[in-house]
Amino acid sequence: MGKGRLEAFSDGVIAILITIMVFNLKAPQMHTWDGLMAMMPGTLTYVLSFVYLAIYWNNHHHLLQLTQRVNGGVLWANLHLLFWLSLIPVATAWMHESEFVDLPVAIYGVVLFCCSVAWWILQSTLVAQDGAQSRLREAVGIDIKGKASMMAYLFGTLVAFASPWFAIAVYSVLAVVWLVPDQRFERAVV
Amino acid sequence: MGKGRLEAFSDGVIAILITIMVFNLKAPQMHTWDGLMAMMPGTLTYVLSFVYLAIYWNNHHHLLQLTQRVNGGVLWANLHLLFWLSLIPVATAWMHESEFVDLPVAIYGVVLFCCSVAWWILQSTLVAQDGAQSRLREAVGIDIKGKASMMAYLFGTLVAFASPWFAIAVYSVLAVVWLVPDQRFERAVV
Amino acid sequence: MGKGRLEAFSDGVIAILITIMVFNLKAPQMHTWDGLMAMMPGTLTYVLSFVYLAIYWNNHHHLLQLTQRVNGGVLWANLHLLFWLSLIPVATAWMHESEFVDLPVAIYGVVLFCCSVAWWILQSTLVAQDGAQSRLREAVGIDIKGKASMMAYLFGTLVAFASPWFAIAVYSVLAVVWLVPDQRFERAVV
Amino acid sequence: MGKGRLEAFSDGVIAILITIMVFNLKAPQMHTWDGLMAMMPGTLTYVLSFVYLAIYWNNHHHLLQLTQRVNGGVLWANLHLLFWLSLIPVATAWMHESEFVDLPVAIYGVVLFCCSVAWWILQSTLVAQDGAQSRLREAVGIDIKGKASMMAYLFGTLVAFASPWFAIAVYSVLAVVWLVPDQRFERAVV
Repeated sequence: MGKGRLEAFSDGVIAILITIMVFNLKAPQMHTWDGLMAMMPGTLTYVLSFVYLAIYWNNHHHLLQLTQRVNGGVLWANLHLLFWLSLIPVATAWMHESEFVDLPVAIYGVVLFCCSVAWWILQSTLVAQDGAQSRLREAVGIDIKGKASMMAYLFGTLVAFASPWFAIAVYSVLAVVWLVPDQRFERAVV
Repeated sequence: MGKGRLEAFSDGVIAILITIMVFNLKAPQMHTWDGLMAMMPGTLTYVLSFVYLAIYWNNHHHLLQLTQRVNGGVLWANLHLLFWLSLIPVATAWMHESEFVDLPVAIYGVVLFCCSVAWWILQSTLVAQDGAQSRLREAVGIDIKGKASMMAYLFGTLVAFASPWFAIAVYSVLAVVWLVPDQRFERAVV
Repeated sequence: MGKGRLEAFSDGVIAILITIMVFNLKAPQMHTWDGLMAMMPGTLTYVLSFVYLAIYWNNHHHLLQLTQRVNGGVLWANLHLLFWLSLIPVATAWMHESEFVDLPVAIYGVVLFCCSVAWWILQSTLVAQDGAQSRLREAVGIDIKGKASMMAYLFGTLVAFASPWFAIAVYSVLAVVWLVPDQRFERAVV
Repeated sequence: MGKGRLEAFSDGVIAILITIMVFNLKAPQMHTWDGLMAMMPGTLTYVLSFVYLAIYWNNHHHLLQLTQRVNGGVLWANLHLLFWLSLIPVATAWMHESEFVDLPVAIYGVVLFCCSVAWWILQSTLVAQDGAQSRLREAVGIDIKGKASMMAYLFGTLVAFASPWFAIAVYSVLAVVWLVPDQRFERAVV
């Protein structure tokens, strides 16, 4: 099968998730600087989740560039990734509404961890489909960055019970690390 | 007419429906393990409906692969299917908010039944358009799986009045049965 | 300019509007047949507006088939149509929440009237762009059906103040009339 | 990389933002002319923000016509623009719910200012990618209109503290100025 509709559907779902989160930004009750300040934690959390979803969209874009066709297994691996991404808005809302206490911050890390596992499954399914000699196989390599990130999300999750703010720092640093599009793929696309 | 916009519009509607349901997952009031546990029934119901919508998208993808053009009848048969799919989020919400009492669970089955009937109408309209010798006609065959599923949704609906949990088990088993992409189509697409 | 993005953007907006309305269908508070019955007026109103938006999408699809390129005027005529279509969900909600008293039913008619005027403007802009000899010009003809519908929406709006239910009957009959895809365009597309 | 998915994703996000704002238009509690009048400020604010988002979509459409490929920098410049556009609905809601007091009206101007800066960054990234001799470079020119608008949004923001209504007049005049598609691009596309 062609990859056109898989791309279109994924674009649709990620576009909706990224804009759904704006709904969690309620306009302040007070119409003063205090009201504006009260919005800041929610807005910054929105920025973090916006960046994560943008990273996934961006890398999805790069990943799919390197393949032409998709089989049934890839369709389901992709839907599985979209499922975990769809939990980011509710995890974001809980973290922010709880005013950043330990459990919700840890759960946010669990969702990011599951997203990264789902990404790894999608990547592996595509590599398995295209074969060991494919451009994709070469571009992915041994994927140290992906595996290290999974570890880091787990670490962030555990550390949240000791210090939620340190966990949020871990998530933020990882977001910055991934902000740069993956050179492996950029090179391979030419 | 070309099938491009029908595919794009269907992708859009299904992508929105699948993400709309996340709204029913309100972040818990309590920021503890109890709060997290309280979210479980809603989350599992979301998973079930996510899988159903994913199945329809997936099979829609496969079905449309086998045809090139669509007439006015197909456009309306497709909109009819989208209408029934659009009731899945509200049926899901009612089932979960009622804490799984009989009527809402039965209605969820009615909606699934109507979706499967609408699917059968769409399939038949496409077969009628493409003719008895078409690849599509051959791939669909006598469609025992489709017809058996309709019966099973009806059975689930009726049994809900005796035991809602048994009905939910029926819906879940059917979801698993359909999770595997339809080999009839996969083979035909080559 | 090519027409691809205009089609994609319109598909996106109409797909969202059609699914946004499902939000107005709140799951009933009671989990009984009475609860289900209480949902009926809202559900039927949803059906009516779903059909109207589906008609516009369908005819939009047909109309754009007959042209290849779009200029700046067409882009804005299209956005103008999307603006009026975007008011259908809120007009639907008001009509239904008011339990069908006169003013909201009349306003629903006003919105339908403005949509039909916006449609006529879009059609005329396309005809002006493509010239008097174009296939589009020929297919549109003198457009008695379009002009008669505008009159009928106005009539429905006025009659709502005497009998809201009669106005709703007018809107419903017009929906059925338009449900059949426009043969003028179907013929012209071949 | 091709520009197809960047266009599709941007279309998706802008289509959702433009329709999300309709949610802020709650159906009136009263079902009378007073109820309808009470909706007017919200509706007019919706019109203003609808026009702004429509302008950005329109000019995005024109801008991307002039380039064929996009690199990683363009993807992120585009996501950055989408981020600021995504704040328009919440800024609109706050401005309208506050009944147009100074701070929310000023913040609306800040969001418009940031959107115009993000637009300028996207434009510059595209020009840098395509080189000094490109059609795009020529079409953009020294972009007096873009730079003057940035100044005007800042002016509107500051003046909001003296007179919110004057600031809104500034925003509205700028919307009208931009409503005309950019002749520079229209000419260059041919």
